[in-house]
Amino acid sequence: MRTELNPKLTLVGAGPGDPDLISVKGIKALADADVILYDDLVSKELLAYAKQGTEKIYVGKRVGKHSHTQQAINELIVHFAHEKGHVVRLKGGDPFVFGRGYEEVEYAAKYGIKSDIVPGISSAYAVPAMQNIPLTSRGVSQSFWVVTATTKEGTLTPDIKLAAQSTATIVILMGTKKLDQICEVFSTLNKSHTPVAIIQNGTMPNEKMVTGTMGSISQIAAEEQIGSPAIIVIGEVVRLGKQAWIPQLQQNLQFQTYGE
Amino acid sequence: MRTELNPKLTLVGAGPGDPDLISVKGIKALADADVILYDDLVSKELLAYAKQGTEKIYVGKRVGKHSHTQQAINELIVHFAHEKGHVVRLKGGDPFVFGRGYEEVEYAAKYGIKSDIVPGISSAYAVPAMQNIPLTSRGVSQSFWVVTATTKEGTLTPDIKLAAQSTATIVILMGTKKLDQICEVFSTLNKSHTPVAIIQNGTMPNEKMVTGTMGSISQIAAEEQIGSPAIIVIGEVVRLGKQAWIPQLQQNLQFQTYGE
Repeated sequence: MRTELNPKLTLVGAGPGDPDLISVKGIKALADADVILYDDLVSKELLAYAKQGTEKIYVGKRVGKHSHTQQAINELIVHFAHEKGHVVRLKGGDPFVFGRGYEEVEYAAKYGIKSDIVPGISSAYAVPAMQNIPLTSRGVSQSFWVVTATTKEGTLTPDIKLAAQSTATIVILMGTKKLDQICEVFSTLNKSHTPVAIIQNGTMPNEKMVTGTMGSISQIAAEEQIGSPAIIVIGEVVRLGKQAWIPQLQQNLQFQTYGE
Repeated sequence: MRTELNPKLTLVGAGPGDPDLISVKGIKALADADVILYDDLVSKELLAYAKQGTEKIYVGKRVGKHSHTQQAINELIVHFAHEKGHVVRLKGGDPFVFGRGYEEVEYAAKYGIKSDIVPGISSAYAVPAMQNIPLTSRGVSQSFWVVTATTKEGTLTPDIKLAAQSTATIVILMGTKKLDQICEVFSTLNKSHTPVAIIQNGTMPNEKMVTGTMGSISQIAAEEQIGSPAIIVIGEVVRLGKQAWIPQLQQNLQFQTYGE
């Protein structure tokens, strides 16, 4: 134990899954950490960047089986910062994109602990990109709207209704359990023909993608047993990922024909 | 010159500016490149990852002084892939978030050149995050909408009008020249009180931020001579960056009081 501690928190975004998608700055933070608190969507390979003696603690909370509440994680951060020094909070994707990173920074600050943010590559655009689906493309879509499916109370986020009325590409995170409700929103707006892709385990070896329309995707996703973690991309840009100029996609991925 | 060439294109996102915000995968691509075509929003330090003999060509196009058209860049990619082998196209931020990367992949494919995508950290959320502004936060905002200010034709993107009516945090890229028009959209909707931050040269040593409301920001930005590249963040989350628990922000940054 050091005689003089400098309590500090660094929030590090690990990126969408592939361990090589972390930033150099993120690796430097991991190498400097005295304690690493990590989630389950984070590749275990990243923990190897830690120096000898660094404590590595799993604080994951998968959908449906919360192993640590947010409050418990907040308390662990403060405890270890005071006890050991530099705490790195390693989170999947980006810590501030639906990552509740802000709550951790705020809580730590109450106890006099300063925070640094090391952004990560967010799955929201990176996972579609690696399937050759750009969220924006000249003449197709000029904006994108990123939304979680579920409110604090467990209901469908009302923003999805607004988004469905817009011209933006819509990216829904953590939405597979609400898929039927989401499709219904589009059906009510006579937009069942809108193309959609669902990508599970994006950037990982077990990545799986299905495509269809808002009218057909529920059945396709059920048949292909698509589960979380997955990203839903809705909009005309989905068609771009199907271009004939991507032969490797057609070989490796399960494409479904459009149309209802 | 190698006897057998394997023409290939890798689009690499360099991230928002800080050279340490590139991914490990991006560095590996740079180290393997035979030719690197880079933009001006990319840190020159990244070119040092190239192996000896790699040709490094600047193809930047700053707002207002286009040095290379998109078509010229497309042709350079194809030329060098056939001439030298592995072309890395190093782009600021993420190559598929308004980066026109898709057009380059599509053009290369016409000439039989395969592409890989290495996503980058997009400025859209990373620049606000490093100012402690999360684009989403429980109870404040549940979604965010990313939009460019300008259409192909140079007019204000109509999506901004829709976005202004929504509850999403709005991020406008490349928008400082259209700031007055954007503020007018909010004024028409009686939303002049909405908080806004403009961050110029995000994540770089010369980073500069101003905050205000949609009613006051035009004057503040003019007084502080805010120019491009800059990111505009609109929504209640902007207030979170002003919390008293961020003492380093208050010391280093020029904060303006809210209110008109």
